[in-house]
Amino acid sequence: MKGLSCGTSRIVGCRFSIYPMADNFVDIIIGALKEVDTSKVWMKTDDVSTCVRGRSEHVFDVTKAIFTHAAKTGVHVVFNGTFSIGCPGDSEGDTYMSESDERLNEEASRVEKVEVATQFALYPLNNPDYMQVIADQVGVAADHGTFTKGVHYASRLDGDVHDVFQSLEEAFVNASKTDDRSHVTMTAAVSANSPSTKDN
Amino acid sequence: MKGLSCGTSRIVGCRFSIYPMADNFVDIIIGALKEVDTSKVWMKTDDVSTCVRGRSEHVFDVTKAIFTHAAKTGVHVVFNGTFSIGCPGDSEGDTYMSESDERLNEEASRVEKVEVATQFALYPLNNPDYMQVIADQVGVAADHGTFTKGVHYASRLDGDVHDVFQSLEEAFVNASKTDDRSHVTMTAAVSANSPSTKDN
Repeated sequence: MKGLSCGTSRIVGCRFSIYPMADNFVDIIIGALKEVDTSKVWMKTDDVSTCVRGRSEHVFDVTKAIFTHAAKTGVHVVFNGTFSIGCPGDSEGDTYMSESDERLNEEASRVEKVEVATQFALYPLNNPDYMQVIADQVGVAADHGTFTKGVHYASRLDGDVHDVFQSLEEAFVNASKTDDRSHVTMTAAVSANSPSTKDN
Repeated sequence: MKGLSCGTSRIVGCRFSIYPMADNFVDIIIGALKEVDTSKVWMKTDDVSTCVRGRSEHVFDVTKAIFTHAAKTGVHVVFNGTFSIGCPGDSEGDTYMSESDERLNEEASRVEKVEVATQFALYPLNNPDYMQVIADQVGVAADHGTFTKGVHYASRLDGDVHDVFQSLEEAFVNASKTDDRSHVTMTAAVSANSPSTKDN
């Protein structure tokens, strides 16, 4: 996963929520957070969502780790969030951009095996070629073997949580490199342990 | 809420999930669905999300109704979805565009009182003026009295579920009218009955 950071060191953010479908959802979320080192990202949680911001690799490292540790409980847990880069209104938190690219949570996340079903959508803003950018990155996921099909308004990925997050990260970072100041967002709903029949 | 449909009768879709943070989440979702008349929209549910498509007013009517009936249980429930119009790849389901504009669920939804906290973001694609389109529609929510503050990558709305969904619908429909073939998406996370301290 080296070389996936943005060459221009532009700040990446993700506003997301973890939804454990269980009475003890608070314990599951707090338990997952305790296992994750968030020292390389700016982070703020409110009553609706959590926002993490910093270098691309740490934003993906932290979001994957929080989700993975929540999902390993076996409870039906969903990660639902939007990644963003290049938002003209974004400015704070730049101090975190000087962190090294070593991922603090990958080792502990990697030992967990969680099968996930994911729907994601890329939104390259202010780009007349945006449909091609999207198609190219769905192609990247297809090359990874995680892409399973297109659905209305989204593309579906299935597989191990690590493979799926790698596809999400590469699609997002590649799309963000289409020009120096591109503004790109990406929504992702990542579901584990659903009792519903898998639809792929 | 008359006059909020798109003049060009363009198909609107929403891919969303309802997340009840409770052991009996399946019962809550199925119970809510049973109370909602979905006959005016194309609808498909898979193991990750549900997609509804049709006239704008019915997409908002159905999504608000499903969420409201789930939230009235008192359980912490979140609606998280993306509304879309003008996607160049969208084509099916046009038969639903000939439905009348009478909302089938508004009467039953309206009697329910649910306080919600919401974060939403508009993404006008392929539009150099997109930041102004977003600012204008946040202004509409401010005029409604639902806008409470901006947060990183989103705007926050608080209040009664009906007021908040009205702001979401107007923001989305207004943004979609910026030109005849505009492609606009809007993410929304709508939370009810959270045990967390309200942050506004």
